Amino acid sequence: MFLEQIEGPNDIKKIKPKDYSKLALEIRRFLVHKVSNTGGHLASNLGTVELTMALHLALDLPKDKIIWDVGHQSYTHKLLTGRMNEFDSLRSFGGLSGFPKMSESPCDVFDTGHSSTSISAGLGIVMGQQIKGEDGTVVCVIGDGALTGGMAFEALNNAAMVNRNFIIILNDNKMSISENVGSMSSYLDNLRLGEGYNDLKAGVQKTLHRVPVIGDTLVDKIVKTKSSIKQLFIPGMLFEDMGITYVGPFDGHDVKKLVNIIGEAKKIDHPVLIHVLTKKGRGYRYAESNPSKFHGIAPFVVKTGELKTKKKGLTYTDVFANTLSNLAYEDKKIMAITAAMPDGTGLSRFKKKFPDRCLDVGIAEEHAVTFAAGMATTGLKPFFAVYSSFLQRSYDQIIHDVCIPKLPVKFMVDRAGLVGKDGETHQGIFDISYLLSVPNMTVIAPINAKELEMAVKYSASFEAPIAVRYSRGYACDVYSDEITEFEYGKSICLKKGEKIAIINVGNMIEESKKCVDKFIEDGYNPELINARFIKPLDKDMIKDVVNRFDYVITVEEGIISGGYGESILKYINDLKNEGLTNIPKVLNIGIEDKFVKQGDINTLRKVLKIDGESIYERIKKIL
Amino acid sequence: MFLEQIEGPNDIKKIKPKDYSKLALEIRRFLVHKVSNTGGHLASNLGTVELTMALHLALDLPKDKIIWDVGHQSYTHKLLTGRMNEFDSLRSFGGLSGFPKMSESPCDVFDTGHSSTSISAGLGIVMGQQIKGEDGTVVCVIGDGALTGGMAFEALNNAAMVNRNFIIILNDNKMSISENVGSMSSYLDNLRLGEGYNDLKAGVQKTLHRVPVIGDTLVDKIVKTKSSIKQLFIPGMLFEDMGITYVGPFDGHDVKKLVNIIGEAKKIDHPVLIHVLTKKGRGYRYAESNPSKFHGIAPFVVKTGELKTKKKGLTYTDVFANTLSNLAYEDKKIMAITAAMPDGTGLSRFKKKFPDRCLDVGIAEEHAVTFAAGMATTGLKPFFAVYSSFLQRSYDQIIHDVCIPKLPVKFMVDRAGLVGKDGETHQGIFDISYLLSVPNMTVIAPINAKELEMAVKYSASFEAPIAVRYSRGYACDVYSDEITEFEYGKSICLKKGEKIAIINVGNMIEESKKCVDKFIEDGYNPELINARFIKPLDKDMIKDVVNRFDYVITVEEGIISGGYGESILKYINDLKNEGLTNIPKVLNIGIEDKFVKQGDINTLRKVLKIDGESIYERIKKIL
Repeated sequence: MFLEQIEGPNDIKKIKPKDYSKLALEIRRFLVHKVSNTGGHLASNLGTVELTMALHLALDLPKDKIIWDVGHQSYTHKLLTGRMNEFDSLRSFGGLSGFPKMSESPCDVFDTGHSSTSISAGLGIVMGQQIKGEDGTVVCVIGDGALTGGMAFEALNNAAMVNRNFIIILNDNKMSISENVGSMSSYLDNLRLGEGYNDLKAGVQKTLHRVPVIGDTLVDKIVKTKSSIKQLFIPGMLFEDMGITYVGPFDGHDVKKLVNIIGEAKKIDHPVLIHVLTKKGRGYRYAESNPSKFHGIAPFVVKTGELKTKKKGLTYTDVFANTLSNLAYEDKKIMAITAAMPDGTGLSRFKKKFPDRCLDVGIAEEHAVTFAAGMATTGLKPFFAVYSSFLQRSYDQIIHDVCIPKLPVKFMVDRAGLVGKDGETHQGIFDISYLLSVPNMTVIAPINAKELEMAVKYSASFEAPIAVRYSRGYACDVYSDEITEFEYGKSICLKKGEKIAIINVGNMIEESKKCVDKFIEDGYNPELINARFIKPLDKDMIKDVVNRFDYVITVEEGIISGGYGESILKYINDLKNEGLTNIPKVLNIGIEDKFVKQGDINTLRKVLKIDGESIYERIKKIL
Repeated sequence: MFLEQIEGPNDIKKIKPKDYSKLALEIRRFLVHKVSNTGGHLASNLGTVELTMALHLALDLPKDKIIWDVGHQSYTHKLLTGRMNEFDSLRSFGGLSGFPKMSESPCDVFDTGHSSTSISAGLGIVMGQQIKGEDGTVVCVIGDGALTGGMAFEALNNAAMVNRNFIIILNDNKMSISENVGSMSSYLDNLRLGEGYNDLKAGVQKTLHRVPVIGDTLVDKIVKTKSSIKQLFIPGMLFEDMGITYVGPFDGHDVKKLVNIIGEAKKIDHPVLIHVLTKKGRGYRYAESNPSKFHGIAPFVVKTGELKTKKKGLTYTDVFANTLSNLAYEDKKIMAITAAMPDGTGLSRFKKKFPDRCLDVGIAEEHAVTFAAGMATTGLKPFFAVYSSFLQRSYDQIIHDVCIPKLPVKFMVDRAGLVGKDGETHQGIFDISYLLSVPNMTVIAPINAKELEMAVKYSASFEAPIAVRYSRGYACDVYSDEITEFEYGKSICLKKGEKIAIINVGNMIEESKKCVDKFIEDGYNPELINARFIKPLDKDMIKDVVNRFDYVITVEEGIISGGYGESILKYINDLKNEGLTNIPKVLNIGIEDKFVKQGDINTLRKVLKIDGESIYERIKKIL
């Protein structure tokens, strides 16, 4: 085993070049084996084995710095920096992170998780070296998908600001999580197909013969000229125009060649982009043929590529996507938008039925929201389906482009609440706070499949900004019989009771129910209310519970600050100031002021003391 | 007067071409005269008089749509759509907005204020037409400054998605508010200097002779080839590479030519970018020679270009900038970052002293934050000075790149609280909520110049993420004698008292003082506390006031939801659950769940009932 000889950074340099391919094979086997047990990001990691080896061979870590954009391709890097023995704990509570973590290794120089941040961070690090007069090569590894994110462009626009070496490796696998979209993608297609700089002279000369000199109108002439000139292909001129030297494309699976190229690129005294072609899922046939499925995968059987645990039912994502598809047959104004997540958000099935009405804008959450706002001004009904933690990118656009003009954009906030193993960067725990702070916004948190379906329908006919938050995982059916028609801003009672009122927000319903059941065992009879609308607050309901109960408990899976619980406290305080006496005790269950690390959701809830049992204990303390 | 003949959209078409220049002159005189009285955006509007005329001549409004990026260049558009008589109320409470407003006119099709949104919105509108089978030309007018914003790139990357006409006018004045930066800017410089497409063939041939064919190493060869090829200039290829036809550059002050070009561009069946060169401040010499000063200007004397009201003292911006500059002499690790606002944030004076340590990244708030985070990993001390409402763009980067890894980035949040006449889009009323929701963040709100100075110094040596929020306008000196040394998380008492405790957050100090004074007149003796740290909460102080007072009042200029007041309520509720009885009445003064329109700050505070008098009245109600 060559892999076992690698116990820390630079140990790979002991391996002989003739054995590189054997090491790559070992790494792939190791990753497939480990991830088949733990689950994790597989396809992206299999695609970057040789690239990572080459970087470790050409660089001197930790003095040189590698910043992994998104970070879901950093497993080989973890292996080559001595973390082989921790892979059994990958993505589990207290275990190895699935992303780079500064806290794990001095070779992880920047934490990532969300897309398109690496060039900005890399420039900051180069700036640090420049100011402090330090040496060291800084390399950002960014996928072609991540390049569609606006902040990557903002960074490219600033790259020429550093007057020293800075290497950007464009890891081009023609995919983000799903297939890539947009002009940048077509542009890269051209680069891939082009024959590189050697052919340049011939290409230019050939093309010049086709440039027309006479046209009719000015613009017409220009258009014709330009479309001829597009044949004339100068590799990477788009990057060159940004002040960055472009080289490539190169085979991303040829270690020796890559080592050579990186070595040469280190000598350039300004920013250089190395275009590298890799294959997502490389070396494991199931991942190669279905890289989207094997992007982030649950434990699977290596021999068959099939999941170890079969799908148990519909997820909330399924319920949303099915409902929207059904609605769209009748309502021609319904449009769907995704930011590079057609599979994750369930919209791929909508796209199959309505290809013209489903728009994948790439990893571009800011654009997505304002694009939706523009659509909404024309009377269309845009649904933007997006993960809670990625919608954070659009906070300004939600305020500025949707809520100030009060446009009926529909935010389908998937992965709201804890998401588990992706850890801090992906937990959907801020959306309640950031959406509640925005005037003119309505926020719904359905508790089960039936209510999500109704919420999607309600959103379709709602004439102002609206967000529906639902969580990762299977759609539950508890209290399905209690779900009644929607009335704007109104909660519903799920179970009548006395003394203790529990107001549940959305996906916490099973925990709330567990808590209620435990109280019933104890001889209590708590009331259980489904908040349904987190915003606006159901003031009538609050007045009622304040009158009828001694204890009012709010339960939500979101950060406490600015959450539903605080808004209840504020309203009860208003009532008190208006003269109400006999205020019940209030307890807000939610996520305290800390980031939530990786782990399975049930474990995390226990740790955070927001599982049914803990809620029960916490209420008992104040009784 | 030709201008008086224009009472609504399309009336300009009655003017004869020979009179265009006279109309332009009238418009300029009108704008200079009106803005000299009301204040407003002058330079950007003077630069776009002819462009706007041309658009109104070439298009059919409101069927055709113009989206004004940022919107501070829309005054001529307002004049040409019949709003001439409302200019005396420009930017005042209840008056004409300084930005496009759908609520003002059917010719304002999208509300703007923040930068780089127009192409996204325009694409949404085109998509609406496409789906609904409707006609009409959609034109986005975007400045070269706004083009550095990432979401503009995200939109360009998606422009080719529409398979019909879509016009982007690049209004290139070489400026954002200040001079433009970054590679896009240099690229546009090249376009400006190029001789357009006519010269193309000659240029290419000439260049080809310079392409080297033999080099040493591969990368070296490529670099040499490329730098030769850069001489070969194909106008607008960067845009062409994004699937957008580029035409230009054209003189942006030649109405007839522009009408012709826009007319031709309308016929193209895919996205087209028209590059137009304009001069900011055109036609008014003081604005031409100092466009940055006349970007957003207070009332001025037309004859001299001087402000009617002389500067009365130091602003908070001055205090921050002076303090940072002074610190930077000693502390070589201090770096300053601005997103295209060197003047607005005061950093231009820092840049004069430390040109290498002040980085203007363009209109790129997302990049700015992650760039700062990268710097912070190297031990530098990055200060990002930014307006509160623009920092909304970086919410995800604050969470993901700064606070999760707990990097010591310093956010200098200027224009926090009400900003007045720019209206809804610019009020800095969300920062308290969005910053408080983020774990690992510390937030300070100084009450006067002395405390801001100390806060900046405190930030410099603080080893975790920290934000200092200060407001627009003059730095006050009330309670300067009471300002003591900083202690982490600790408030300070400004005035001892009894029965009523007022906890003031930052810039509301003068209102809080007024309120205290009124109570003193009434024979009360309220205590006044300076919260200083909004996060973390000073729990000892809260425990103390809860014990000692009957009434606890929080005063902040921010949205209530998720604000300081709610965090106090939450903590007092925790104390109650821990067994504390005898809870005082609490009143949260802040901004209710509505956007705050334009108007001068004193008027707005009265309307919002957060001025000293109103606070006094509101407290009295609960006594």
